[in-house]
Amino acid sequence: MKKINLLEKFNLFQEHWTPKIIGELNSQHVKIAKVHGEFVWHDHAEEDELFMVIKGELIIYLRDGQITLKEGEIYIVPKGVEHKPFAEKECWILLFEPKQTEHTGKVDSALTKKLVELV
Amino acid sequence: MKKINLLEKFNLFQEHWTPKIIGELNSQHVKIAKVHGEFVWHDHAEEDELFMVIKGELIIYLRDGQITLKEGEIYIVPKGVEHKPFAEKECWILLFEPKQTEHTGKVDSALTKKLVELV
Repeated sequence: MKKINLLEKFNLFQEHWTPKIIGELNSQHVKIAKVHGEFVWHDHAEEDELFMVIKGELIIYLRDGQITLKEGEIYIVPKGVEHKPFAEKECWILLFEPKQTEHTGKVDSALTKKLVELV
Repeated sequence: MKKINLLEKFNLFQEHWTPKIIGELNSQHVKIAKVHGEFVWHDHAEEDELFMVIKGELIIYLRDGQITLKEGEIYIVPKGVEHKPFAEKECWILLFEPKQTEHTGKVDSALTKKLVELV
């Protein structure tokens, strides 16, 4: 078991909206992603999803409002709640969610990506 | 559901080695703690435990080595692995672990604290 340095991990890739697994514990994944622009509306029927902003600013649109997250801020989207992340400029995020969580829930989108592990 | 600002949460308390719950998802807790000095050797028989350093430096002693974590670094202690956290200066950490995780495992110590929620 090695320690995980977030900055080193973020420097290993450039692509947007493509979460990378950086850790696993108790059947949950720790992931990081670089995001820019608009994602798709989706929900995860059975999984709560934690977003933490590491750099930049992320807006999470909800059907009844929106949350703006800056560096050092966290939001937990409860299971079943539709959300659409958006970042006007590139933003770096950390995600914490169950291993079985699907990227865009049951929505099939051009943005839907298979999960890969970042070694 | 409100967003969670880590700095605001850390500013709500001063005591050391007293984790505070700041979020919950998928039967896991997100906790923060301020630590300084030496904790006790313990393990969690059934729970993996994630440490992330938000400010300062944390050493996690293991029976066969040690891990030094700086700001933005993460270490996951697997279930059943004995560990003893140590911080020479005050250090702020974030923890992810299952709700049922006991503070010092089966070790009963003067440092053992009941979990409280940080509103």
